[in-house]
Amino acid sequence: MSKIQSVVFDLYGTLFDVHTVAAKCDELFPGRGREVSVMWRQKQLEYTWLRSLMNRYVTFEEATEDALKYTCRTLGLSLDGQKADVLCEAYLHLRPYPEVAKVLDALRARGLGTAILSNGSPYTIDAVTRHAGLHAKFDHLLSVDAVHVYKPHPSVYELAEAAFKLRRESILFVSSNAWDATGARHFGFPTCWVNRAGQPFEEMGQTPNIQVPDLGGLIEQLESSQLLSR
Amino acid sequence: MSKIQSVVFDLYGTLFDVHTVAAKCDELFPGRGREVSVMWRQKQLEYTWLRSLMNRYVTFEEATEDALKYTCRTLGLSLDGQKADVLCEAYLHLRPYPEVAKVLDALRARGLGTAILSNGSPYTIDAVTRHAGLHAKFDHLLSVDAVHVYKPHPSVYELAEAAFKLRRESILFVSSNAWDATGARHFGFPTCWVNRAGQPFEEMGQTPNIQVPDLGGLIEQLESSQLLSR
Repeated sequence: MSKIQSVVFDLYGTLFDVHTVAAKCDELFPGRGREVSVMWRQKQLEYTWLRSLMNRYVTFEEATEDALKYTCRTLGLSLDGQKADVLCEAYLHLRPYPEVAKVLDALRARGLGTAILSNGSPYTIDAVTRHAGLHAKFDHLLSVDAVHVYKPHPSVYELAEAAFKLRRESILFVSSNAWDATGARHFGFPTCWVNRAGQPFEEMGQTPNIQVPDLGGLIEQLESSQLLSR
Repeated sequence: MSKIQSVVFDLYGTLFDVHTVAAKCDELFPGRGREVSVMWRQKQLEYTWLRSLMNRYVTFEEATEDALKYTCRTLGLSLDGQKADVLCEAYLHLRPYPEVAKVLDALRARGLGTAILSNGSPYTIDAVTRHAGLHAKFDHLLSVDAVHVYKPHPSVYELAEAAFKLRRESILFVSSNAWDATGARHFGFPTCWVNRAGQPFEEMGQTPNIQVPDLGGLIEQLESSQLLSR
């Protein structure tokens, strides 16, 4: 019997390419798109961590817009309400990575449960998966909004246990964000790190159980590490 | 009567210049010093936030060394144990900003209590203040190590209330880190942001009560904002 019964995916950067937002940034701030999108993403994450620590939760959409404001003020770029709307709206129309639909189908064909566990709000997760035509491929779409604290707080990972009614040891967590994979590993999930950019892993006392360059090789890696029976 | 009875300072970047570490980085990694020190500082902070959220506290020294390892691996720089020791040791010999001794004396001459509240360990705070000859100018040296969680968690700011046996409204918190000033403000401290680099403030739902370009103008600003009587 397989060790894992369900697979839970992070959304941003794992199933969906956040750098499609960079193109929109470059449209509105010609020549500065990459600079804007990199700082924006960094600040967006910082604000989720800091607000969680301060016990001052706001939705991911609010944190995202706050991060964009900070970024534009820091880079000396003028941001009006219309530009902010266009850019934040881009987060609802992300493109999935090309291998995503196929790997979800293959996991489900094996009888595994599938879910998304994301910092995004329920509305955002729903919109992003619908726009990409992937909505029906998940048993659960789980948002941190249910617990009003962001990843990597353990309460977030508990949402997946509760949704599947499974012990954490039976749930594979998949993320391209090394800090998220670290949090999941500390929590007790078997964890796969999708290392799309060929980066070193974080130095926070954990390593992932398996590592793949993209989701295409996931099932094979799970089999060869005996997390999934052949 | 003055509204504030005591003044609590952040250490890194507020009283002491962390970019003195950059010089040591450049000595060991010629031409790459700034790159190393900027990424190292960013990762150091991230690790304190993430470990706090994961409930996996390690001392600031350990988080600092982990952040250095990550930085060197990411930048493709070789780090042996000796280099790591030299660089981490640099954090114990930081230079205070030139105006620090004078402003501490002036506050104490007015009968105000003074303290440091820092992410650093008790050993580090003690070493840094002794090396700079400032040790006797503080009533309390407070470390997050007492609560095993990092700033901006409210438990950290509570340490200052407990040490001075004062309500938070009577304690001025001073930090050059905008995220720290935001946390202190959410907690309920009157707060001064030392904006040494002329940056925009963070967008996390708070603004500082007063802002100064360095600590030299602190007392005047406190008086003109009526936090301190003339």
